Amino acid sequence: MKTKSVSIIINSPTFLINGQVCRTNIRRMAEKARINDLIFRPHFKTHQSVEVGEWFRDDGVEAITVASVSMAQQFAAAGWQDITIAFPLNIREIDEINLLAGKIRLNVLFDMPEQAAAMAKGLEKPAGFFVKIDVGYHRAGVLPEDFETIDTILGSAGSDMLQFNGFLTHAGQTYGANSREEILNIHRKTSEILYGLKQKYNRKFPGIITSTGDTPSCSLAEDFTGIDEIRPGNFVFYDLMQCQLGSCSFDEIGAAVICPVVSVYPARNEALIYGGAVHLSKESLTNQDGSKNFGLIVPFINGKWRHPEGDDCLVSLSQEHGIFRTDSQWAKSLRPGELVAVIPVHSCLAADLYRNADCGFRIA
Amino acid sequence: MKTKSVSIIINSPTFLINGQVCRTNIRRMAEKARINDLIFRPHFKTHQSVEVGEWFRDDGVEAITVASVSMAQQFAAAGWQDITIAFPLNIREIDEINLLAGKIRLNVLFDMPEQAAAMAKGLEKPAGFFVKIDVGYHRAGVLPEDFETIDTILGSAGSDMLQFNGFLTHAGQTYGANSREEILNIHRKTSEILYGLKQKYNRKFPGIITSTGDTPSCSLAEDFTGIDEIRPGNFVFYDLMQCQLGSCSFDEIGAAVICPVVSVYPARNEALIYGGAVHLSKESLTNQDGSKNFGLIVPFINGKWRHPEGDDCLVSLSQEHGIFRTDSQWAKSLRPGELVAVIPVHSCLAADLYRNADCGFRIA
Repeated sequence: MKTKSVSIIINSPTFLINGQVCRTNIRRMAEKARINDLIFRPHFKTHQSVEVGEWFRDDGVEAITVASVSMAQQFAAAGWQDITIAFPLNIREIDEINLLAGKIRLNVLFDMPEQAAAMAKGLEKPAGFFVKIDVGYHRAGVLPEDFETIDTILGSAGSDMLQFNGFLTHAGQTYGANSREEILNIHRKTSEILYGLKQKYNRKFPGIITSTGDTPSCSLAEDFTGIDEIRPGNFVFYDLMQCQLGSCSFDEIGAAVICPVVSVYPARNEALIYGGAVHLSKESLTNQDGSKNFGLIVPFINGKWRHPEGDDCLVSLSQEHGIFRTDSQWAKSLRPGELVAVIPVHSCLAADLYRNADCGFRIA
Repeated sequence: MKTKSVSIIINSPTFLINGQVCRTNIRRMAEKARINDLIFRPHFKTHQSVEVGEWFRDDGVEAITVASVSMAQQFAAAGWQDITIAFPLNIREIDEINLLAGKIRLNVLFDMPEQAAAMAKGLEKPAGFFVKIDVGYHRAGVLPEDFETIDTILGSAGSDMLQFNGFLTHAGQTYGANSREEILNIHRKTSEILYGLKQKYNRKFPGIITSTGDTPSCSLAEDFTGIDEIRPGNFVFYDLMQCQLGSCSFDEIGAAVICPVVSVYPARNEALIYGGAVHLSKESLTNQDGSKNFGLIVPFINGKWRHPEGDDCLVSLSQEHGIFRTDSQWAKSLRPGELVAVIPVHSCLAADLYRNADCGFRIA
């Protein structure tokens, strides 16, 4: 991902970063990790940008998280020497993993004995692994009470090349929480589960750690007892979903997609932007009236997006078209050719759509 | 978009085309257009691939539709000389449009007088335009009874460089239809509306045409009375949504995303694939039980995907993870490292995610 900077002409959908806000978000999370004596291993899947990655290095970050072997290759090529691929091992990629393990300090995840066995058999260079624990999100991982599977994984990983690093989770159920308290409860429970596992296995495997990473917990929690490492990613940009969850304020949102207004339809209180599913993703929130919200429309003035004027949100997206409800007086006054900013529902998915684009991100 | 062909090793999510099926889909639609004496101007937004575009040329196609100025630039560079940008004019892109109009026969769309006025003022080379009509989808377009706006657009487009081509619509409401009859009713109404407008304006503007394009109507209708041009796009690949609508049979689906199984979770009848929102898009259908369906999982054997074994569908997608419900015995027997095929809900959005990838599409 390349980035281009400032004083730019925008005529088509453009992913714009507020560099100052993002750097503040990074600094604050790095500081929180330092205060709580946590390893800060940020997830780079959100930005997938070598340039944004350098901002983390400026704050002392040396170890990172990625979501795929290809991202690990990208950031290894950019000089990152300590990478965890936070996705259960895809045993079809053992060859690529061997190549990476020969170059950097690499960690992988297992949640099945087959993965550990394949890795133990195929690995030619040293690597570390975590056992992925399912603390309630039910996406991936071993259930924390399933000691039999944990022990089978540890037994299957018997290789001099493979080092057991500890227990890792992603408490993604915080994204469905309805309050700050619910997020903090999930975080507490997650910490207890991981710490319990560490206590149980610590004697046999001294030095193992616990690792968690969802942005809501990492943003809101102040107490990280039982946790050794955090891996948040989304917080660098935040987005509308995080704002709604209470993980961030509107002013902490660091990315928006700038789009031209193409047509206005006053009779139905709607307007058309050039900006659709291929520029924003189809991630949506549900408004209080039950309608869908694919992004919040806010003013874009002098190269900066501003606070919302009302509930001007995208109500439908097709491939290249975005239709938004003109709720505020400001939105009703928009004319074809003006630019608006869309605060994306989920910045990770929106950013990914610009990953291979010639222009990449633009930085305001 | 580049494509790579056959006998490939797949270790990560890969967009695979069945070339024979796609070519048959193209041939059938081209034949339908010939029989009905229609201009066949296929929409290239679905595949965005120069190579797939050549398959259309083999069937006599010379005029195409695209959804953006950048797609027009891509296909003009690939030798296409007659292109309609089926998106209301984004007046910020007049410079790029002027460059295109100097190279090819270009048509644009207006649904507001401002667009026509900006084009009439800024255009330096000849181009054609359609008035975009809203026949009930309520995404873009002038309401068909709003003659005042139509006349103002036509008046504002007063330039020797600008030629009025006729009336164009996209009856996208067919995607929400519940039966074949409902789709055909929408198609009939669309045809009547466009033909009525043509009749009204024909005397003043002889030679104007009517153009429509949704894949459900173009696939199911046999009677195109009142229509001069069709612009379907999705039909080249079709997908799960079209199959559910009845626009195609399962055997006419020409694209799938091949993904590795990473983990299986028998206790919850689910499995994890490497394949998430960035490989499939978050477009979803709703299952009869109210659950979401982000794609159908089918066997992938000897380089070909097969018929479904049951209701093995993706129930949740995050950035790189896909979780599917293992309904069939076949799905329950899957092990880590095996490949499955995902029939995408919406092939246009899935294909776009491979647009800039190094690998592009693979052709089986």
